[in-house]
Amino acid sequence: MSNHKAKPIDSTGRFAYDGLERVIHEKARLGIVTSLVTHPQGLLFNDLKELCLLTDGNLSRHLQILHEAGFVEVWKGYQGNRPQTLVRLTTDGRKRFLDYLAVLESVLTDALAAPKEAPSAKPDIAEGWSPA
Amino acid sequence: MSNHKAKPIDSTGRFAYDGLERVIHEKARLGIVTSLVTHPQGLLFNDLKELCLLTDGNLSRHLQILHEAGFVEVWKGYQGNRPQTLVRLTTDGRKRFLDYLAVLESVLTDALAAPKEAPSAKPDIAEGWSPA
Repeated sequence: MSNHKAKPIDSTGRFAYDGLERVIHEKARLGIVTSLVTHPQGLLFNDLKELCLLTDGNLSRHLQILHEAGFVEVWKGYQGNRPQTLVRLTTDGRKRFLDYLAVLESVLTDALAAPKEAPSAKPDIAEGWSPA
Repeated sequence: MSNHKAKPIDSTGRFAYDGLERVIHEKARLGIVTSLVTHPQGLLFNDLKELCLLTDGNLSRHLQILHEAGFVEVWKGYQGNRPQTLVRLTTDGRKRFLDYLAVLESVLTDALAAPKEAPSAKPDIAEGWSPA
């Protein structure tokens, strides 16, 4: 899905990964957004909490950040007599998450293209190096 | 490379992604570690700075965090008469980064398994929902 073209390994900014939008790169929010993209009809607050192993307070705080950044929409309603909160990814949030995933994919491609062997015990660029 | 087995989409903690170690998940440090894994002989401080588009201060701060967590080793030496700093991934850091990449791969697998269509305009779980 990515349009990632291999750039020269040593070009300026080659490993800057600007597209890793901080709002969704944060670990807990990455879990929230991934669970929402796999549940397009939305998830109830309590289900989301369980899927992501977050406390009420943490989930609320992360949802507020995602909501302010336009990633999620929050709906209030009832199931039977019980008030419920439903969270869904917005159309724009879904699009931005897919863009983010393309960058994430390029990180994996870059990293997995690395030489498979571990480095030697000492740098061999020149003699006279010592650990800082 | 991942041992990720598909778990039921609704099991507890399904989207918690515990293996996303915060020290290397942070955007700038993910770039630093990815550039180091592709350069097993190490990178000079100034080259690393350019590859990751970081300032001296930012790179120093992130390297200190990576060093304290055992991901990188820092060597001091000379090229000609000029003092240089060489940074390399440790053997353990390389291993932990590969473990991290396996979790990152499972995030991608999970997210890309999601239904391709955008959600409908309103939740259709039940009538009576309204935006919060």
